[in-house]
Order: sequence, then C-alpha cells, then structure tokens
Amino acid sequence: MKIAILGGTGSIGEGFVLRWAENHEIVIGSRNTEKAEEAAKKYILEMKEKGYDTSKLKISGMTNTEAASTCEIVVLTLPYDCVPQVIESASDSLKDKIVITPVVPMNKVDEHFEYKPPEQGSAALAIREMIPNSARLVAAYHNIPACKLKDVEHEFKYDTVICSDDEEAKKTIFGLTHQMGCLRPLDGGPLSASNMAESITPLLLNLAKMNGMEDLGVNFS
Amino acid sequence: MKIAILGGTGSIGEGFVLRWAENHEIVIGSRNTEKAEEAAKKYILEMKEKGYDTSKLKISGMTNTEAASTCEIVVLTLPYDCVPQVIESASDSLKDKIVITPVVPMNKVDEHFEYKPPEQGSAALAIREMIPNSARLVAAYHNIPACKLKDVEHEFKYDTVICSDDEEAKKTIFGLTHQMGCLRPLDGGPLSASNMAESITPLLLNLAKMNGMEDLGVNFS
Repeated sequence: MKIAILGGTGSIGEGFVLRWAENHEIVIGSRNTEKAEEAAKKYILEMKEKGYDTSKLKISGMTNTEAASTCEIVVLTLPYDCVPQVIESASDSLKDKIVITPVVPMNKVDEHFEYKPPEQGSAALAIREMIPNSARLVAAYHNIPACKLKDVEHEFKYDTVICSDDEEAKKTIFGLTHQMGCLRPLDGGPLSASNMAESITPLLLNLAKMNGMEDLGVNFS
Repeated sequence: MKIAILGGTGSIGEGFVLRWAENHEIVIGSRNTEKAEEAAKKYILEMKEKGYDTSKLKISGMTNTEAASTCEIVVLTLPYDCVPQVIESASDSLKDKIVITPVVPMNKVDEHFEYKPPEQGSAALAIREMIPNSARLVAAYHNIPACKLKDVEHEFKYDTVICSDDEEAKKTIFGLTHQMGCLRPLDGGPLSASNMAESITPLLLNLAKMNGMEDLGVNFS
C-alpha cells in the first residue's frame, strides 16, 4: 500500500516510516517539500545503518497535500491545533481514503498535562466533521512512545486501541498494525469511544514525570 | 488502621476486604445493617476456607454512616449515582478522614460503555464538593477487575493510578496499596487529573467485550 505520513518529519512520524517501509511505499508529508525530502533521505540512511536492504525501499517527501493525494492511507501525525489547516488544504484528496488519527488534544496546566477534547468529544470526532464523508476514519496509535516506536532494535509489545465506524477500514489497520511487530491492535469500538483512548496519552506523560519513568506505553490484560 | 468499605457487600468491596483484612480492621458498610453483617461473616468464612488464620481478623458490618464514623479511612465502592445520598447521610463523620474514590461515572450506549463525567470534570472532583473541606480525598483503584481482586490465590500485578491534592494522604494510600500485593501504585498527580484514570474503566469493559477477553486491568511500562 501507499501510505502518507502527514507531519511525518517529526519523531512519531519517523517511527511509522521505519516500521512500515519494508512492506509499503511511504510518502512523508510536510508543510515544506524540502524538509519532507530531507527527512525521507535521513530515514533511508538510518535504515541502511540498521542493516536493512534499502535498494527496494520507496520513501519520498512531498507537501502534506501532495502526499495525501498520492496515497491510499493517510496518517495524521500532527499536533491537534495544526489539523484543521492541513485537512482544509488536503480535503479533496482525502475522498475515499483511509485516514488514521493518532491525534490527542491536550494542554499543560502547571506541571501536568490534561486531556482537552473539543466539543465534539474527541479529536477523532472533530476530524470526522472536517474530512469528506467518503473518507474512512480510524482512530489509532495514540499511546505509543515515539522514542520506542522508532527504535526498531528495541523489543517491546504495546497495545493500541483502534476505533472506527468503518469495520472494513478497521480490519485493514489491524493488518497494518500487526506488520509493525511491536503493537497488538485491540478493537475499541466505534469512533465515539475514541476519547477514552486519546485521554491515556496525557496520563502517560504525567505518570512518567511523576514516577521517574519515561517513554511509557500501555498494556491491557 | 480501621477501614470502612462503603457499599462493601458488592464484588469489588469483597476484594478490598480480602486484601486488607490481615493487616487492618475492616468495617463493611451497607444501606442495611443485616446485609453488611452477613457479608462480614461470609468474607471471614471465605478467608478461613482459603487457609487464613481468621482468629485475629476484625471484620464487621454496619450501616454506611456508622461504618464511616468509626473508621479513619473510608472507601466509596459505590455506583456513581448512589454516592450523593450515602455521602449526605455520612457527611459529618467524614471530617478529617481519608476518603478513597474508585468511583467511575459511565453509561451504556448501544453495546458500548462511555465515560460520562459530571460537569466538575470527574467523579472525584464532584465528590470533592460533596464532602467536608477537612476530608482528604484520594482517587484510586478505578481500573481493577473485581473478580481478580477477590481471587487472592491468583497471581497478578496491575497498576493503579492515584490522584490527590493531599500529598500525605496519597502516601498513606501508596502504603495501603503495596500491602495488597497485587497492585503497583503510580502517582497520577492532582485530583484534577483523575478523569484520565476514571475513563480507563469503561474502555477496559469495551476492550474485553470487543476482543473476547475478560477481567482486564492495565499496566504502564
């Protein structure tokens, strides 16, 4: 498949690229084409250094809008505040696509993070209103520490909650998740349940800080 | 210490009794004295059957109000809707006490549970307004499957997020939590962060149902 990682020059975007590039064509999106192209080159070099056969890798960089229009799956690795602008300019190209939101709206108050969903109830529900009706929205990958996701030599297995109102799209993302090797996908139900997955992210940040831990993920058992 | 388990005749209350009774005096609270006394007898019998030396156990049953007034620590193992009435009748006796809320306000919508906090932002923040100013509120034990908590022969170790604005009370509850043997207490910050711990409970119920699992707890690592 062809996967666009919008905002893919950031730390969590890098993790997705490294985990998927062996099996899929990856297009990194950024506001700035040059930045996206540089990131693509950097990621290929990194994978080479880690011993991957990079001769067949397809990783490129484009603007967010171009990346979205050329791919079947679009991942929004963006801060919540940046989402409306990026979606607005890419909106037409999201028709019929699977759109993945790992987006978590949060604030820092004093020394703690708090979950700050929009009035719709979650970032996913707000994004649902921003994208075309035919776009197939899946909420996933909220609670994954970026440092571990991109550290492909590090062994771990976290759980990730996947919510969607489109069961077929959910199945596709279950498959993509298994391919990453480090995540167990769990069905979290409909998009309306996505707030409960989103709100774990600020909790993880608080727990790490308050308890002398770092890069926390979550497991359910 | 002397610990009141209000609503302690239910399944989660039973777990607290079995985990604490060897080290503490336990008073089970119920709307109905007889029901509380019966539960106390039943729990002692259960512990005897599991091989505990019950000769020194102190487990008794009273009304919720009496239980609260006779103990230093009061655990609210009650459905959210029942909390206001129980607190109202026990309010005076909660002065200066440590009050523990594992309470989670939730609704079932179609086949899924959703987190439904009151306007204050969480059950803990709403309870803060119901109890005397001198009561020391700690939010804890939201995400523990009742069946496993009371199965003292079952080996497991879940994490529990503990939030409070009273650091001394928080420390006391960290100690009580370690004594249970099956839980790792994690500092979740102030009471205002309790919504993020509460909302994991309906998520656990959904995940269990949607993924063919049962009695789920949570771990952060």
